[in-house]
Amino acid sequence: MTRPLSSYVLDRWFVPEEGLADIPSAIDGRIVARASTLGIDMAAVVHHGRTVGGPALRAMTFHERADRLRALAAHLSAHKDALAALAAETGATRRDNVFDIDGGIGTLFAYASRGRRELPAERFVMEGGTEPLSKDGSFLGLHVMTPLRGVAVHVNAFNFPCWGMLEKLAPALLAGVPVITKPATATAYVAEAVMRLIVEADLLPKGALQFLCGAAGTLLDHLTGQDVLSFTGSAATSRALRDHPAVSRHAVRFIAERDSLNAAVLGPDAVAGTPEFDLFVKEVVREMTVKAGQKCTAIRRVIVPRAQEAAVIGALAKQLSAVAIGDPRREDVRMGPLASLSQRAATRAAVREIAREAEIVFGDPDSVAIVGGDAAAGAFMGPVLLRCPDPLRAVAPHAVEAFGPVATVMAYDDLDDAVTLVAKGEGSLVASVVTADDGHADALVFGIAAHHGRVHVLDRDSAKASTGHGSPMPGLVHGGPGRAGGGEELGGLRGVFHYLQRTAIQGSPRRLSALTRTWLPGAPAAVTAEHPFRRDFDALAVGDTVETPSRTITVADIEHFAGFTGDTFYAHMDEDAAAANPFFPGRVAHGYLILSFAAGLFVDPAPGPLLANYGLDALRFLKPVSPGDAIRVRLTVKHKQPARKPEYGEVRWDVEVFNQDGDTVARYDLLTMSARTGAAPAA
Amino acid sequence: MTRPLSSYVLDRWFVPEEGLADIPSAIDGRIVARASTLGIDMAAVVHHGRTVGGPALRAMTFHERADRLRALAAHLSAHKDALAALAAETGATRRDNVFDIDGGIGTLFAYASRGRRELPAERFVMEGGTEPLSKDGSFLGLHVMTPLRGVAVHVNAFNFPCWGMLEKLAPALLAGVPVITKPATATAYVAEAVMRLIVEADLLPKGALQFLCGAAGTLLDHLTGQDVLSFTGSAATSRALRDHPAVSRHAVRFIAERDSLNAAVLGPDAVAGTPEFDLFVKEVVREMTVKAGQKCTAIRRVIVPRAQEAAVIGALAKQLSAVAIGDPRREDVRMGPLASLSQRAATRAAVREIAREAEIVFGDPDSVAIVGGDAAAGAFMGPVLLRCPDPLRAVAPHAVEAFGPVATVMAYDDLDDAVTLVAKGEGSLVASVVTADDGHADALVFGIAAHHGRVHVLDRDSAKASTGHGSPMPGLVHGGPGRAGGGEELGGLRGVFHYLQRTAIQGSPRRLSALTRTWLPGAPAAVTAEHPFRRDFDALAVGDTVETPSRTITVADIEHFAGFTGDTFYAHMDEDAAAANPFFPGRVAHGYLILSFAAGLFVDPAPGPLLANYGLDALRFLKPVSPGDAIRVRLTVKHKQPARKPEYGEVRWDVEVFNQDGDTVARYDLLTMSARTGAAPAA
Repeated sequence: MTRPLSSYVLDRWFVPEEGLADIPSAIDGRIVARASTLGIDMAAVVHHGRTVGGPALRAMTFHERADRLRALAAHLSAHKDALAALAAETGATRRDNVFDIDGGIGTLFAYASRGRRELPAERFVMEGGTEPLSKDGSFLGLHVMTPLRGVAVHVNAFNFPCWGMLEKLAPALLAGVPVITKPATATAYVAEAVMRLIVEADLLPKGALQFLCGAAGTLLDHLTGQDVLSFTGSAATSRALRDHPAVSRHAVRFIAERDSLNAAVLGPDAVAGTPEFDLFVKEVVREMTVKAGQKCTAIRRVIVPRAQEAAVIGALAKQLSAVAIGDPRREDVRMGPLASLSQRAATRAAVREIAREAEIVFGDPDSVAIVGGDAAAGAFMGPVLLRCPDPLRAVAPHAVEAFGPVATVMAYDDLDDAVTLVAKGEGSLVASVVTADDGHADALVFGIAAHHGRVHVLDRDSAKASTGHGSPMPGLVHGGPGRAGGGEELGGLRGVFHYLQRTAIQGSPRRLSALTRTWLPGAPAAVTAEHPFRRDFDALAVGDTVETPSRTITVADIEHFAGFTGDTFYAHMDEDAAAANPFFPGRVAHGYLILSFAAGLFVDPAPGPLLANYGLDALRFLKPVSPGDAIRVRLTVKHKQPARKPEYGEVRWDVEVFNQDGDTVARYDLLTMSARTGAAPAA
Repeated sequence: MTRPLSSYVLDRWFVPEEGLADIPSAIDGRIVARASTLGIDMAAVVHHGRTVGGPALRAMTFHERADRLRALAAHLSAHKDALAALAAETGATRRDNVFDIDGGIGTLFAYASRGRRELPAERFVMEGGTEPLSKDGSFLGLHVMTPLRGVAVHVNAFNFPCWGMLEKLAPALLAGVPVITKPATATAYVAEAVMRLIVEADLLPKGALQFLCGAAGTLLDHLTGQDVLSFTGSAATSRALRDHPAVSRHAVRFIAERDSLNAAVLGPDAVAGTPEFDLFVKEVVREMTVKAGQKCTAIRRVIVPRAQEAAVIGALAKQLSAVAIGDPRREDVRMGPLASLSQRAATRAAVREIAREAEIVFGDPDSVAIVGGDAAAGAFMGPVLLRCPDPLRAVAPHAVEAFGPVATVMAYDDLDDAVTLVAKGEGSLVASVVTADDGHADALVFGIAAHHGRVHVLDRDSAKASTGHGSPMPGLVHGGPGRAGGGEELGGLRGVFHYLQRTAIQGSPRRLSALTRTWLPGAPAAVTAEHPFRRDFDALAVGDTVETPSRTITVADIEHFAGFTGDTFYAHMDEDAAAANPFFPGRVAHGYLILSFAAGLFVDPAPGPLLANYGLDALRFLKPVSPGDAIRVRLTVKHKQPARKPEYGEVRWDVEVFNQDGDTVARYDLLTMSARTGAAPAA
């Protein structure tokens, strides 16, 4: 099984022949693969992504890209078991694979859904509303986001060969930016297997995804200001990438996720015997042992009330001592080896550094009993718990990341101390706050939020459903300030937007409407010969308008509506009481009466392409309607979006209700579902 | 007038005594000021901002900070003339001061308004919606943004001593982050005058704003991951700041706005004789001459259809030759000198470099006739127009920023060429597209958007109200990718968010509701003894709930409503036709009938603290209501926000309408205005 791993560049597999580096199994040290990128023309790789992959992806809409991601996720799903078998060599247990393999495929699915649901069936996104730039409304601004014209270079860490690759490529490809992905060599055989499945699926356009199995070589020299460089790994490597001359010169977008001394804080209320105490201990044990602690999100600092310190250490030691360590393929093993002997050596060295300011209270970094595996050649290491006696003064326990099953307990005296201790991590990916107390939760969460990309609040209410301290979720940001690198990934569309350029566009309403395929106030609104409700979705054009006759609202109407609906609010019923209200001149029509009469004015009663009104957005009653006022309505197609089912389309209408003086009395977006019969758009 | 300029640090003025650098007048070269920061303890400055300014600002709400900015803007407004007189020494004409002084104060006003209108009366922002993280709804995620715990260091350019300082500090202070601002020394006497007015106004908390007049010294050495560094200026300085070891090590947030070879593109339709041709010429002339072309947004590349090239050059030359150059204090002068002799020397050198690949077709970089001012000692330079014969191959005209009244004309053959030429700038702050044609506008705007932070589309419709190519607007992003630095400023709240940390918070609905002061689905909804509409704004609590009895909707109700309102849509009137509709089981109640009956169920008729229902948000009809169904309503206080007037508060209610089976048939946010009588919040 000492096959050379291949790269996938220029839409073909590249099999290396020189400079091959050995990749040992974490379990027993035998060589399972070899890797090298020597001989790959990195300039050609970047050029291929830019000139072949980019245009192909940009020709697709967000929905089309989302559909490819969904199909890809389904394909990978069907091959999970083969990936899991391979991942065992990295030290991953079945539980670990839930994070790496299932988690990675789940992230692909999540971005596919989000792309369909939250992005338009277009090649650009309109972000936010319009900005008025002139008093008369003839000059406006708005923001669009379009795909960068370069490539996304993804440099991944060894601990999540599947998830790390997929969580980075899903947002980039959805954005329309081609990816060059580079796994960490130590576990590249898992990433290569994933890549083989992706190539086999043949779902992505040519040039959309390239895969470098081995060193990046001169890759970064070829980056420019339209490219993105996203990195997960150590602070040292991160700085080298960030400060690379080409990255600096061209202001290449750089996203880093690096060292993080994540904390878990036990609230003062959560004393031994409370559910929160038990949840805290369980969470710390899980975080120390999942992936043998090789998670950038793992809990490294266990921050507890001084009065609970001994109880916490006792409970952790008890549970840690029950963790079976050994060959990750065995059912009875809960924690596998570290990824490699060199990783273990680095972790042991980190423990020694922390131990200068802390004492080991459980475990032995240099010795562990194992079940299966090769004790001499495998990279096994047991959990190590330290206790720092003076954490407010200590340095290493807050700064040295022992990337293995290692954590340090530190006690605090009050909540301010706890917040100070957390801040000494100088920025982390995630912290857990375990408390059932409102005041403690508030003080801790807002006290530490600025230092974190994510804060996980755990209590008896959320325990059952919690996704856990260590799991980044596709819909929530992943990344942290300072030591953690200052990067941000995932977070739903936020992760997609890193690959888009935001551009303010200024112009006339007519021009901006045409550019954004969205009717904007001030743009031409063409009254159509037939009622637009009679137009099929595909025949409707943005700007199509109906203007209704007017209807006078009488006191009798208001009283009738009040009696019928039961809405006898005094502002509708009692002239004197209404006039005493600061917002009304006297009795006024119900807002719902205005809405109902407006519908009565614009509705087209017979069956036709308009199928249903499924909602309203942003309704504002802008001026009271008094008895005797006459209302009329203008309804304009604002935006069209194909529905998931091809036979329907969603139409958003701008509705403006006027009184007899031409003043706007109400304005809202009306949402309808319209039929598509396949007719061509109106000329 | 050779006074030493003072710095303002540690809440007092620092008058330098050593290392003073001379600052000459742009008009006649005499020394107008001297500056130095020698003797300032930069570590103490950073520490003061962090430990005094930060806590004071964070103790205020966004609204309180916005109010301070508004008062500050009003104070500066009253002293515009004194600032303008001083700015003349920098070469600024009255027209130039509109951009720098009025523009800067306007930006302060704009952020004050936006803070009040778009940010909550809280110390955090909830960004986006909730993310479901469990099937049963017992575990959720959401994002909050809180002020970074560090300082914002602002390093400004010489060309806008007032605007540059204010446009950076307004978003930072609104965010709650203390600022250390450093003007460029060449025009620091204007910035110092602004700072004196700010100090005199005494509106900001201690430590919120410090001012370094002179070199930054060791300032950057003291930055960490909670700080922000924002720079405007040259690419060389930008790189030095970006790659500073402390900035790199701590992943200090870095925002840069640097060199930019902004383009203006004339559409193929805009031939000589069209309004767009004339607008284009006028815009280029304005951009070349305002601030003597010393604007990072100025048009440097004039990209025109080959057939129009000669006509454009002729028209530009004619208008440029009419520009009076000289002492900016004179009424008859339209363009003043450059900021300094060294700036002029750099601009002349840049012209020489561009001229290797282009010919000068108007003006002489080394000679100009002036009106007033000192021709020998002043930094005068006339407009220089170049023409590049082979722009697709040329390098310097796309890469060398001549920071003065200099632009290069380049011809294109088709729109693809035009897009390619624009892209050769490798990222710019802004481009103008001048065309009246839909197709050209679409191809050009989407062709170049990814290379720009802003695209200004000019045509006959928008000409009158256009704010112009060169003016960054507070509501639109300012910044560009690649050569332009990759930074982003302004853009409304986007500019504020650069100073906030985004944090995902996970927990139970109850916990997240308590943390965000916002009721979330799944959180406790307490039915109050009295109807919550009878509770004063201050007595209402988030989560207060009313549950109504139910009301059965009959066929008669539906027919009555249809007859009364005129809404006789077939889905309500005709059983067979309705059943043929894919969304309905048969005849259904009108959505507006459901809304109206819901109001009838929850309304409390007598006068009380609830004054008006002013709108609805995000209404969705989720399940059809058939005749015989009975609806009931649950109404819960979702969020409270004090109105601008202290006697009112805005209450957002979650409204859920159920049928007899407990299924949700409609859901929306109801917006009401409630009275505040000053009662204490309910216990």
